Amino acid sequence: MDTAQVVAETDLAAVQQAAARLAGVAKHTPLLASEYFSALSGNEVRLKAENLQHTGAFKLRGAYNKLAQLTPEERARGVITSSAGNHAQGVAYAAQKLGIKAVICMPATTPILKVEGTRALGAEVVLHGDGFDDAYAYSRELEKQHGYVYVHPFDDLQVLLGQGTTALEIMQDWADVDVILVPIGGGGFASGVALAAKLTNPHVQVYGVEPENAACMKTALRQGEVTTLPSAETVADGCAVKRAGELTYAFCQQYLDGILTVSEMEIMNALLSLIEKHKLIAEGAGVLSLAALAKLPCRHKRVAAIVSGGNIDISTLSALIAKALIARGREFCFSVQLPDKPGQLLAVSQILADQGANVIKLDHDQAMVTDSFQKVVLTVTVETNNEQHIERICRALAQGGYAVTKVY
Amino acid sequence: MDTAQVVAETDLAAVQQAAARLAGVAKHTPLLASEYFSALSGNEVRLKAENLQHTGAFKLRGAYNKLAQLTPEERARGVITSSAGNHAQGVAYAAQKLGIKAVICMPATTPILKVEGTRALGAEVVLHGDGFDDAYAYSRELEKQHGYVYVHPFDDLQVLLGQGTTALEIMQDWADVDVILVPIGGGGFASGVALAAKLTNPHVQVYGVEPENAACMKTALRQGEVTTLPSAETVADGCAVKRAGELTYAFCQQYLDGILTVSEMEIMNALLSLIEKHKLIAEGAGVLSLAALAKLPCRHKRVAAIVSGGNIDISTLSALIAKALIARGREFCFSVQLPDKPGQLLAVSQILADQGANVIKLDHDQAMVTDSFQKVVLTVTVETNNEQHIERICRALAQGGYAVTKVY
Repeated sequence: MDTAQVVAETDLAAVQQAAARLAGVAKHTPLLASEYFSALSGNEVRLKAENLQHTGAFKLRGAYNKLAQLTPEERARGVITSSAGNHAQGVAYAAQKLGIKAVICMPATTPILKVEGTRALGAEVVLHGDGFDDAYAYSRELEKQHGYVYVHPFDDLQVLLGQGTTALEIMQDWADVDVILVPIGGGGFASGVALAAKLTNPHVQVYGVEPENAACMKTALRQGEVTTLPSAETVADGCAVKRAGELTYAFCQQYLDGILTVSEMEIMNALLSLIEKHKLIAEGAGVLSLAALAKLPCRHKRVAAIVSGGNIDISTLSALIAKALIARGREFCFSVQLPDKPGQLLAVSQILADQGANVIKLDHDQAMVTDSFQKVVLTVTVETNNEQHIERICRALAQGGYAVTKVY
Repeated sequence: MDTAQVVAETDLAAVQQAAARLAGVAKHTPLLASEYFSALSGNEVRLKAENLQHTGAFKLRGAYNKLAQLTPEERARGVITSSAGNHAQGVAYAAQKLGIKAVICMPATTPILKVEGTRALGAEVVLHGDGFDDAYAYSRELEKQHGYVYVHPFDDLQVLLGQGTTALEIMQDWADVDVILVPIGGGGFASGVALAAKLTNPHVQVYGVEPENAACMKTALRQGEVTTLPSAETVADGCAVKRAGELTYAFCQQYLDGILTVSEMEIMNALLSLIEKHKLIAEGAGVLSLAALAKLPCRHKRVAAIVSGGNIDISTLSALIAKALIARGREFCFSVQLPDKPGQLLAVSQILADQGANVIKLDHDQAMVTDSFQKVVLTVTVETNNEQHIERICRALAQGGYAVTKVY
């Protein structure tokens, strides 16, 4: 059966059946009103918080819907997949609930904490190869060797139907929603959500959101066929997919109203705003919908933005916050050359204090300037309030006779 | 009227009236089931998420209950307080809702973002002095000069009655709750919560939680009178209070079942766990109840732990995460002396790679060793999984002939 036929034959009942299977397994996650994002986008915005789902992401919906329909013979064989992310935990969680053996292939370089997190859900983790492609290839090999059932992260009808239950919850909680924003990696989530929303109410608009750096579905829709991107490097690593699925492409072509893309900076800003305004953590891929709110081509509509997942490594979070602080003008690093005579450090410190700039790091290196033996370089990192504050600091230093070189 | 008499004459109806005033103003915040904290404490734990309250903390409850009862003449005069924290925003929010002028005194050193956050709620912010004491003194001066009504952050009956509405919500949502954990700064929140809980059901146990470094209420209860601590330095800055209130002392003496104290490390760990397991952000003071869960003197009980606030500065959050990562053995910094000949850096890099330690920072300084011209010092920071991983790395380096000095 070709993909067009599958799309044509898949009805709302299929998603409703998935929802019935998921009752008591997946959380009906809250739809949170957001004053901040409403003001930002000029629409009435609510956040569908799938980051508060079991395992921290929507993925268990699709995995469970798939696994629950395996035959007794397939269940006995066990399932396999390759993933170091939310899909791994979704499959492990679903398999544990159903008492099915799950094998998850991950690259050998996967941080031990992710490995242990998946093992804690009862799955067998096999570490193999240097990257995701190696782990994937090995999982398909093990599938053949052992007869496991392969659970694709997105290009599978039962998986995408499970993900679609998210849209049923949104429309149950907010019957007159006008627009739904859903992130796209390989397209499984967007396929299910768009299908479920459109078949419930054809007037609802559903937009997919992709990182500019990994817009495989937008590219496929524009070119009229699924193609492989040369690269997919993005802070939204859960959506760093080079090639959309064939089936998901067909569903997105049929049901999506459009795709919006967002920059890396927009993603980081959305993540920071979610923390600051809502006290909620999400991963990069989780905030794509929020990052797209400002460029939504409508006003005064009721918009549900899906926050798809919250599994961000705490070190990654820390690094992202650091980058975002710089981007927002909340941290400023610069260097100045000083004449190598006493009192210069004091003079610069005085200027910074006068400008209310809190010094958080200082490097004073007499060896760094090679073109002059009379000067030393002072590298200073200060906490600042915004870009205007940084400009004031630079002006004050210039007036004091110090030439500032911006480091970042 | 002395404080004992106020305590004796304050009944449940007073809190219920506060709840009626707050209807439609304060959010009825969710009570979230927590598998993680339940397992940790051996009790059934739910989190009362006041970090999701308007303004990001419970404080508006008390402020609004106070302001709503001012006479028309008092309203016309306006209100004043001194705070750079949640109380400032609570008063500003309440005043804005009621159309009352609010003046907030903050130290001149307050970050501009906090100032602007409070101004955005319509309050007039007056910056004065170097620290909180100066700002407080100035606010009392302005109070006299202009006839403003002073709104104390905790030692005020109407304020603590407002805070107590939090307990009514808990008991409404979870009728058979056994234990409530509430953080203590000056004691207003704990007074209101304990009063409301005990008068609703005398079998409920209410424990206050204080930072070890700022246990002013525990000290007062032990000594039988309110005393001033010599210092109150804690990462839970919202609870860095040196002296409990007189009225709050009387309420806590009457209604609290006990006070638990928690260390700085326990606070940071609780904050990190809340992020990792629940995708929720809180401030240091906000997670005191969570930090105390492991030392609760009961098992198999229904425990509501109040997460009181989420207003943590994003730079502070970033710094706390960095410290917590080190404390959890997720980051390791060490130095080794190397013979100053080629290939040494490669040899050390190889050992680290073999041990799966990801290098995130490297300092290679030929000038740092003063006792020998044949050696250089290499300072390395690596990402690690846990303390055992760090030990394995140290052993491997030692076997390679490198003496490791732990930096942190």
